[in-house]
Amino acid sequence: MITLSSDFGSPYPAAMKGVLLSETDARLVDVSHEFPRQDVRAAAFWLREVLPYFPPAVHLVVVDPGVGTDRAALAVSAGDAWLVGPDNGVLLPAARALADDGGLTLFEVVVDDPDSSTFHGRDVFAPAAGRLHESGADPLREAGLLRPADGHVDLELPTATVRDGGADGEVLVVDDFGNAITNVPGTVLDGASEVSVDGADPIPAARTFAAVDSGDPLATVGSHGNVELDVNRGRGDEWFDLAPGDAVSLEVR
Amino acid sequence: MITLSSDFGSPYPAAMKGVLLSETDARLVDVSHEFPRQDVRAAAFWLREVLPYFPPAVHLVVVDPGVGTDRAALAVSAGDAWLVGPDNGVLLPAARALADDGGLTLFEVVVDDPDSSTFHGRDVFAPAAGRLHESGADPLREAGLLRPADGHVDLELPTATVRDGGADGEVLVVDDFGNAITNVPGTVLDGASEVSVDGADPIPAARTFAAVDSGDPLATVGSHGNVELDVNRGRGDEWFDLAPGDAVSLEVR
Amino acid sequence: MITLSSDFGSPYPAAMKGVLLSETDARLVDVSHEFPRQDVRAAAFWLREVLPYFPPAVHLVVVDPGVGTDRAALAVSAGDAWLVGPDNGVLLPAARALADDGGLTLFEVVVDDPDSSTFHGRDVFAPAAGRLHESGADPLREAGLLRPADGHVDLELPTATVRDGGADGEVLVVDDFGNAITNVPGTVLDGASEVSVDGADPIPAARTFAAVDSGDPLATVGSHGNVELDVNRGRGDEWFDLAPGDAVSLEVR
Repeated sequence: MITLSSDFGSPYPAAMKGVLLSETDARLVDVSHEFPRQDVRAAAFWLREVLPYFPPAVHLVVVDPGVGTDRAALAVSAGDAWLVGPDNGVLLPAARALADDGGLTLFEVVVDDPDSSTFHGRDVFAPAAGRLHESGADPLREAGLLRPADGHVDLELPTATVRDGGADGEVLVVDDFGNAITNVPGTVLDGASEVSVDGADPIPAARTFAAVDSGDPLATVGSHGNVELDVNRGRGDEWFDLAPGDAVSLEVR
Repeated sequence: MITLSSDFGSPYPAAMKGVLLSETDARLVDVSHEFPRQDVRAAAFWLREVLPYFPPAVHLVVVDPGVGTDRAALAVSAGDAWLVGPDNGVLLPAARALADDGGLTLFEVVVDDPDSSTFHGRDVFAPAAGRLHESGADPLREAGLLRPADGHVDLELPTATVRDGGADGEVLVVDDFGNAITNVPGTVLDGASEVSVDGADPIPAARTFAAVDSGDPLATVGSHGNVELDVNRGRGDEWFDLAPGDAVSLEVR
Repeated sequence: MITLSSDFGSPYPAAMKGVLLSETDARLVDVSHEFPRQDVRAAAFWLREVLPYFPPAVHLVVVDPGVGTDRAALAVSAGDAWLVGPDNGVLLPAARALADDGGLTLFEVVVDDPDSSTFHGRDVFAPAAGRLHESGADPLREAGLLRPADGHVDLELPTATVRDGGADGEVLVVDDFGNAITNVPGTVLDGASEVSVDGADPIPAARTFAAVDSGDPLATVGSHGNVELDVNRGRGDEWFDLAPGDAVSLEVR
């Protein structure tokens, strides 16, 4: 199984699929091609949340603002999974989640004059992912297509500061429903009935959207385990005027 | 085969696919993840129109404004197909279409403390659909994971009133082309050359978009068999100023 | 393998998949369902760029402003591949690319009173593509479902005029990143460091987006081999005020 993730929209992912299917009969599964454009951190968050639900797979990831520069191409062994993508940190949070308590092994994909300097998804990463799926790493190392990585770019998603009666964190991403997903752990809402966001009038802390009227705001714990600031049948990002990267300070009671 | 339908956009459907593929090697086919957000009626319409074209399958459907509340989870046996989703009526119009003249058998999916209260697509419906595909219903009943449903929420799409020289109905959905799809049966246009919508100047009743100039309006019979109000190479919803739920009165001649 | 391409958005492609899967167990791969609406030329460009990356397949293509009129339905044999779609030229540039130096053989799909006059993707092209995949052309010819095409609509993508120190061409498409993809061959940028677009102040000619600051314009050679007018982490179409079909005159130095 090979999963595909990118910020490409359409139809560039199809070229990657054509390349993959020229190398392998593997099942292909799209994770998303609608990640926010060139937003390495948002992609890293979503991949960390979604990839652990998959059975063992090669995960091809292309969110790559540095395409064509000398940033390396990586293949990361993490538990039963492989991740293949640019060396800009996007793979690392998901790799750590997939490795569970195990370690990571990082390889550099040896890139030999790709056809384009703007579409390494097609010309570098998809061929590498296809070959890795077909043969595993050892033949690729022997063929000089992979070598141990000599350092890499890391990325840690920011963590919130939990304190008595609240937390200080930030918005990591806004999902397609408009839910503003923070980095504040959901446990901060344990036992709480109300939350004040950035000093404003308190809103309900609720387990379900339907606990508040249509159009009303709430704080809840999303499926990722973090606090979300939402509106039932509406957009939390607009109601709270929050965008990815904005700081949020929560007081609960 | 398992089909997936939701209003999730991206990337939440991928988590459902990961869960499904941890249970089954079934083929997965996306019907849509772009149904209008939390619009149970629109999803019910599209599912009724599209699912009958599939061979026997388990159809996983998650348009679920009541997620996390005590609304039940259903598995509906309809002809050769199963439908799995929330008990809010969204499954019923498609189930009746799939059952053809046969009856429906409704089961409740027994939900045992899911991981989240906001993403039952991942934590309740996908596991149930995967297991149903793998084993059929009987082992799940014996294991206490399914039980006969004790009532359910129904949903009937509204029907138009056909009368001499026209019909009174409403717009059910607007498709991605901007076509305003009504609930008026296409037979109302039989032999007609013109249609007046809500008393306005008549527009052509035509069999094809290309029968009128680019940018001009027309009434036609869509692929679902209902009257659509369209614009050739344009958006009918904007030209006619119509949205889902709006009443439409048609006079034909 | 059957690929699907259309301008349908969602959920109409699912009905085509249901029909295909009632005929065949082939792998289905979406190329795009987000081609610009009813823009035959844009679809022809993308298909020409993307389809050659696929292994042998039946390529189902539905961008069809003339649906329901007497425009024919075509099945085109091109190298190892087949293309199935409307006779409006959309198939031809890709077919020529797939045939490489070989010729094309064009058949007309015999259409016998389809269920709808607005959705031949479901009622004409998908059944034809499914049958072609299952049996090849000969049984379909014997059954009277295919016959040699008696002429067809051609479409040539416009070519740029390359001259000393520049080229005169046009924008073919704008991709989802906002890159304005022209028909000027990338070789025009060989050795150039700057490009003036339509007489404006020169911008850098660069191999990678990251060669300019975030928000700054550049001219580069896209993955299709043509000159693109782009903005690093921004939209080239907006910066240059260019849309598909607009003429562009480039001076390089």
